Amino acid sequence: MTQTPSVLVVGAGAIGSFYGALLKKAGCHVSVVLRSDYEVVSQSGFEISSPMGNLSWQPDRVYRDGDRPDAAPDYLLLCVKVIPGVDRAALVRPWMGKNTTLVLIENGLDIERELADTYPANPLVSCLAFIAVSRTAPGQVSHQAYGQLVMGNFPKGFDSHCERLTGLFREAGIKVDQSQAIVGERWRKCVWNAAFNPLSVLCNGADTLTMLDAEGGEVLIRNLMREVMAVAKADGYPLPEDLVEKNIPGTRAMGAYKNSMALDYLNDRPIELDAILGNVVAIARQHQVAVPHLETILVALRMRQPSS
Amino acid sequence: MTQTPSVLVVGAGAIGSFYGALLKKAGCHVSVVLRSDYEVVSQSGFEISSPMGNLSWQPDRVYRDGDRPDAAPDYLLLCVKVIPGVDRAALVRPWMGKNTTLVLIENGLDIERELADTYPANPLVSCLAFIAVSRTAPGQVSHQAYGQLVMGNFPKGFDSHCERLTGLFREAGIKVDQSQAIVGERWRKCVWNAAFNPLSVLCNGADTLTMLDAEGGEVLIRNLMREVMAVAKADGYPLPEDLVEKNIPGTRAMGAYKNSMALDYLNDRPIELDAILGNVVAIARQHQVAVPHLETILVALRMRQPSS
Repeated sequence: MTQTPSVLVVGAGAIGSFYGALLKKAGCHVSVVLRSDYEVVSQSGFEISSPMGNLSWQPDRVYRDGDRPDAAPDYLLLCVKVIPGVDRAALVRPWMGKNTTLVLIENGLDIERELADTYPANPLVSCLAFIAVSRTAPGQVSHQAYGQLVMGNFPKGFDSHCERLTGLFREAGIKVDQSQAIVGERWRKCVWNAAFNPLSVLCNGADTLTMLDAEGGEVLIRNLMREVMAVAKADGYPLPEDLVEKNIPGTRAMGAYKNSMALDYLNDRPIELDAILGNVVAIARQHQVAVPHLETILVALRMRQPSS
Repeated sequence: MTQTPSVLVVGAGAIGSFYGALLKKAGCHVSVVLRSDYEVVSQSGFEISSPMGNLSWQPDRVYRDGDRPDAAPDYLLLCVKVIPGVDRAALVRPWMGKNTTLVLIENGLDIERELADTYPANPLVSCLAFIAVSRTAPGQVSHQAYGQLVMGNFPKGFDSHCERLTGLFREAGIKVDQSQAIVGERWRKCVWNAAFNPLSVLCNGADTLTMLDAEGGEVLIRNLMREVMAVAKADGYPLPEDLVEKNIPGTRAMGAYKNSMALDYLNDRPIELDAILGNVVAIARQHQVAVPHLETILVALRMRQPSS
C-alpha cells in the first residue's frame, strides 16, 4: 500500500460523493467512476453543501463506466444501489487489484455475500451509513444531517484496513462505530427498515406518522419488527428484546419522516426491495421462521413491480 | 301489499338501475331515489345496453335524496355502496313503511346487521349479485355479462317475500339461487373478494393474472383465502375444503381480470374496504383467529386511505 492511500469510488451518487469528499479531505487520492454526470463532474467536480461546511471537491481522476484504470486502488468504495439488474461483482471487476480492499457503503441485509464469494482473497469492509443526503442536480449534492458509519469486516471482525479507514473518516470529522459483528448491526438497522420502508411504498410514499397513526398501524409495525427480530435470532444475531419498544417512540420523536425508499419510489427511482426485505424473507424461509406480515408486503410489492 | 308490487330503488347506480329495470319488466311499479343524475333520469330514464336486449326504462317516479314519498313501497331495494360516511339506515328511513320489505343488493360481509338492528320489524332480504355492469354516463348503463342473484333472508331462512321476488326476477329473465343460509353464501363469495380485491388496490389496480403470476403471488392469495375460510368456520359457516383449490384455476380461466374494487380505485371512487375485508378481520378478532396476511393488507390500505 502506498503512503497516500488511493481510493476509487464506484457509484459516486449522493452517498459515494459524500464519503469520497471526506477521504479526500483526509488526504487520500480519490477518483470516481460515474455512469451519469460524467461531463459535469469532470469539469467542475462535486458541489456538496453540508452542515459540516463546504465539502465540494474535485476527484483526482474521473472515469467512465467501462474505462480501464491506471492502477488498482487501495480502497474501492462501492456505493451503488442494491437492485436487480445491477451486477455489483461485475461492476467492480476492472478496478479490483490483488491488494484492493473492497468497502461497501450500502443499505440492506446479506448484500456482501456475492462480493465475498467473487473476491475471496480481498479484504471486505462492510459499512452502514446513517445519513440524510441527496443528489439535487448533476454533480450537486445536499447533505442535510448525520453521516456516521458503523463499520466492520464481513462476516465478522475488525482488521487493520478497518482501523485505517476509521482513522481517515474520523480525521475528516465523522463518527465511526467499530463493530466486530457487522451482520448483527445490519440486522439491527433492518428491524426498522424492513418494517417501514417497503410498507411506505405500498402506501404510496406515506410518512412515518401517517403509518403509525392509521387504525392498526402501530400494531402492524410492531409485528413487522418482531418478525425481523425472530429471523435475526434464528440466523444467530439475537437483538435486545426491548428494541421494538425503543424504535416506536424514537420514530415518533423524529416527526413525520419520509424514508429513503419512499423517496426513491416518489421520484420514480428503483427501490432496494430485496436488500431491505426480500433477503430477510429468504433467510426466514431457510430457518423456517414464519413471517406472514413481512411476506404479504414483499409479495404485494412484487405484484406491483415488474421484476427485472 | 297491493296487487301490483311497488318497488323503490335507493341508490340507482349501475346495479340499482339494472335490477330496477328487471322488476319494471316483470310488471312492478318502480320508482328511484337519486343523488346524482336526477335531471337526466327524470327526463329520459335509464338507457341500459345489455346482452339480454334493450333494458332501457322510465321509472314511475324519480325522487331526489331528501324528498318525501307519496307512499311507502312494498320493496325497498338498497343498492348503495357500503362505505364510511354513508349511513344506510338513515338513508332509507324516509321511505320505510310498516310493511316495507328491505332488499339489500350489496357486496360484502356482515353488511345487514345495522339495518336489521334499526328495522327489526321489517322483513330483510339479502342478495348477492354476480354481475358485470357499469355506469358509462349520467343515466347510461352498460350491462356486460351475468346478473344472477343469490337470495335469502338475513340472517337465515327464505320467506314469502323472497319467494315473490324470486318469481319476479325469474320472470324478467335472470337466474336466482335461493339460499336458506345467505350469510354462508356471503362468506363463500368473500373468500375470493377479500383475497383479491383489496390486494389489487394495494397493487395499484393490478389484474388477477398479474397478481397470481408475481413471485410468491399464488401462495399469498391461497394464504389469504385460507384465512377467510378459517374465520368463516369459526363464525359457524364452514366452507368446502377444496374451495381454494377450485378458486385458483377458476380465476386463471377468466383471464386477466380487474375486479370491481380495482376499478373503483382506478376511477377515484371510494372502495368498500370494511364490507369486503375490515369486517372479516373484525370477526376474526372476535373468534381469536389469526389472520396476519389479511390484517397486513387491511392496515396498509388504511394507512393509504384517510379514513372518513
